[in-house]
Amino acid sequence: MTEQRWQQLSEWPLIVAAAAFLGAYAWTVLSPAAGAAAQLAELVMWGTWVLFAGDFVVRLTLAPRPARWLLHHLHEVAMVVLPVFRPLRLLRLVTLLGVLQRSAGTAVRGRVVMYAAGSTLLLLITSSLAMLDSERGAPHASIETYPEALWWSTVTVTTVGYGDFSPVTTTGRLIAVALMIAGIALLGVITATLASWLVERVGEQDEAHQAVTRAQVADLTAEIAALRAQLAARDGRDR
Amino acid sequence: MTEQRWQQLSEWPLIVAAAAFLGAYAWTVLSPAAGAAAQLAELVMWGTWVLFAGDFVVRLTLAPRPARWLLHHLHEVAMVVLPVFRPLRLLRLVTLLGVLQRSAGTAVRGRVVMYAAGSTLLLLITSSLAMLDSERGAPHASIETYPEALWWSTVTVTTVGYGDFSPVTTTGRLIAVALMIAGIALLGVITATLASWLVERVGEQDEAHQAVTRAQVADLTAEIAALRAQLAARDGRDR
Amino acid sequence: MTEQRWQQLSEWPLIVAAAAFLGAYAWTVLSPAAGAAAQLAELVMWGTWVLFAGDFVVRLTLAPRPARWLLHHLHEVAMVVLPVFRPLRLLRLVTLLGVLQRSAGTAVRGRVVMYAAGSTLLLLITSSLAMLDSERGAPHASIETYPEALWWSTVTVTTVGYGDFSPVTTTGRLIAVALMIAGIALLGVITATLASWLVERVGEQDEAHQAVTRAQVADLTAEIAALRAQLAARDGRDR
Amino acid sequence: MTEQRWQQLSEWPLIVAAAAFLGAYAWTVLSPAAGAAAQLAELVMWGTWVLFAGDFVVRLTLAPRPARWLLHHLHEVAMVVLPVFRPLRLLRLVTLLGVLQRSAGTAVRGRVVMYAAGSTLLLLITSSLAMLDSERGAPHASIETYPEALWWSTVTVTTVGYGDFSPVTTTGRLIAVALMIAGIALLGVITATLASWLVERVGEQDEAHQAVTRAQVADLTAEIAALRAQLAARDGRDR
Repeated sequence: MTEQRWQQLSEWPLIVAAAAFLGAYAWTVLSPAAGAAAQLAELVMWGTWVLFAGDFVVRLTLAPRPARWLLHHLHEVAMVVLPVFRPLRLLRLVTLLGVLQRSAGTAVRGRVVMYAAGSTLLLLITSSLAMLDSERGAPHASIETYPEALWWSTVTVTTVGYGDFSPVTTTGRLIAVALMIAGIALLGVITATLASWLVERVGEQDEAHQAVTRAQVADLTAEIAALRAQLAARDGRDR
Repeated sequence: MTEQRWQQLSEWPLIVAAAAFLGAYAWTVLSPAAGAAAQLAELVMWGTWVLFAGDFVVRLTLAPRPARWLLHHLHEVAMVVLPVFRPLRLLRLVTLLGVLQRSAGTAVRGRVVMYAAGSTLLLLITSSLAMLDSERGAPHASIETYPEALWWSTVTVTTVGYGDFSPVTTTGRLIAVALMIAGIALLGVITATLASWLVERVGEQDEAHQAVTRAQVADLTAEIAALRAQLAARDGRDR
Repeated sequence: MTEQRWQQLSEWPLIVAAAAFLGAYAWTVLSPAAGAAAQLAELVMWGTWVLFAGDFVVRLTLAPRPARWLLHHLHEVAMVVLPVFRPLRLLRLVTLLGVLQRSAGTAVRGRVVMYAAGSTLLLLITSSLAMLDSERGAPHASIETYPEALWWSTVTVTTVGYGDFSPVTTTGRLIAVALMIAGIALLGVITATLASWLVERVGEQDEAHQAVTRAQVADLTAEIAALRAQLAARDGRDR
Repeated sequence: MTEQRWQQLSEWPLIVAAAAFLGAYAWTVLSPAAGAAAQLAELVMWGTWVLFAGDFVVRLTLAPRPARWLLHHLHEVAMVVLPVFRPLRLLRLVTLLGVLQRSAGTAVRGRVVMYAAGSTLLLLITSSLAMLDSERGAPHASIETYPEALWWSTVTVTTVGYGDFSPVTTTGRLIAVALMIAGIALLGVITATLASWLVERVGEQDEAHQAVTRAQVADLTAEIAALRAQLAARDGRDR
């Protein structure tokens, strides 16, 4: 079996596992009570770890050059080995956007915007959970409930930054940095999409000054080819 | 009657209704006193609701595929059914910009900038009203007068975010999120417009390296057609 | 005398007057003491008012359609009539950038960046002065010295917005809004310039896929014209 | 020896000197204790000064027009003469990115992003050091540890600006301004890169409407040349 085939087979199970992980993680953070439910959530999180670790090992085995493959998948190594990077599993859910889009078959710009919006939403939900998990209970912490964490995430990702809530723990600040980078990227994606659309629209407007298309030049080339054929036919007659 | 015809007929009455709604809403928020005036404002708001609900029902009836139409107009369903989304009626006023522009007939870039500026201004006025309505009286609220709300809206939409004022209620924060998204979009529109203009200007400067226009290729094609005609004429003479 | 000729003649005197106004305004704000110096500053400010008002009247007289001209120069009406808009005279100094550039003769992108940087610098200096003038002495004001005002302006124009200083007076907030809009525009100009440069660079790299230039198509047309001449010459011989 | 040859020879030694300067500067700021280590750090910093001053003098001597060269390297004059601008030596480390890239040979966009990311990272590290150096001990200062300075730098460069930490000294604020300008530039670079990529992708999608490439027009020209040759051959036969 090739790596590509395995990825096709494992796509949906891993998406489901990532969704289950998100649910269990949210449960653990939002209702931090002991008992059967907490144990179940813990179990689900371990279960998804086993699935992702298994997928990692299988792909490493199937790769033609394992060492090179490992170098290009360092973030997956981190995700499997270090507990701190567990939320990286949620990147799988971004694949879901790809699956949805494949059936829709939209244009480049639509796809870019959909990825950007979907990833940002997922990032907001997850980073708010992680932020709440790391800030709650820290001295001088201002973020103490999930709605507050969501509000803070949105204020950060849009680069508004009121400062009414801000992280005080190191983990919290690392999450914030990730959100800020995502915010800058989001701004860039939106602007770039608008710019690309506008450049196209402005170009369309002035018919006489539009750029020449390949189709037009193809017509021109056909015209000349016809001319040569005409000439060749005469050559034949004359001889 | 087709849906399109109905939309042409209902365009101006709905714009007027939206403006009346804005006036009545502003009155209710800015001078929250009981009495005849308050009852009048309440009446106007109910009146505009009836108009918008009526328009909604007529368009649903006229639509060729009502179920599909409903799916594409979910925001109108929300606007008619839920009182919270009443301000969505003001979207009608954005149509006004379209009406104004139709008589002016400006270029793509001018139209984009006009829509962006007009919508942002309308959004600032409305969201400040809604913000004041939801924050005033809440414990620990910092936004307490309309000028403060306007100042806060501007600081938010430009993504500056001083933090001297910030919403504390859930409704207020949802309004803030809408403003932030509008701010990012505004930034994107301005940058994209400038980029499109600059790409065009830079292109114009260096005459010899300008992109080929359709007009030029049309000249070329005419030249070749003349050549074929010349050749064909000779063929006729020779035969 | 035409309006254009007058503008050429009055260009330098008005630039000098604007610079004198800036100096006098800065003096009034930064050392608000009574005495001969204050009276001199006051005199200079009135003198520049007379010059700008005179220039306005002359251009209104010279304009072919005065009513139309008035409609297109409303900001100058405000500048001459209302004392609040006095700082608009400083817009003249932006002309200085145009004068400097005319001798340098740089490319579109260089000119755009120079205008943006120059205007932003001028705006920072002026708005800090105006901000200090309007905030100083207001209750709960945080901006009390010129360095603080400059720091606040920079934080605002870059849309960072720490919130350690923020205006509390209405005049101060209106100045802040102007700075925020300038900040968004500045961001847009920088991004657009980079985008335009990058689009050009990427295009240059892949020689075989470069856009066709007018020069190339002109060569092609010449080739075909030569072909027709060749054919016509043969026609002449054959007859 | 030409200036270019000297630059090739001095490239690596100066990069190493800049790295040594960074190490010594970090050591001085982060563990401000007297003793042998502090003296060593001081020595290293003086050593790198001698190296950079030497390089400056040699290049000034080698330049064909020394006066003109001096005018174009004012920032190096400042770096050599004024102690405040010592950190400018670190600009050398940006050259390192150029060296790394030369062996990789990536495309324009990749190079631009790499330079932007590398410079931003270097700027964050250095400006946090300089900020800590200038703020620590100042009255009312909020930035007191290196992690806090790093957090503040990141919040500033992304233009989020919470305001939980902000500089109070003049030196600190000047560093902040540099970071803000870098932040705007970073935002611009990311957006421009995305826009350029997107414009290209959208263009590629619709095959029939793609811009004409030089290769296509070259084909067309060859076709016409063949036509002329065909005609010339017939001319030869006929005569």
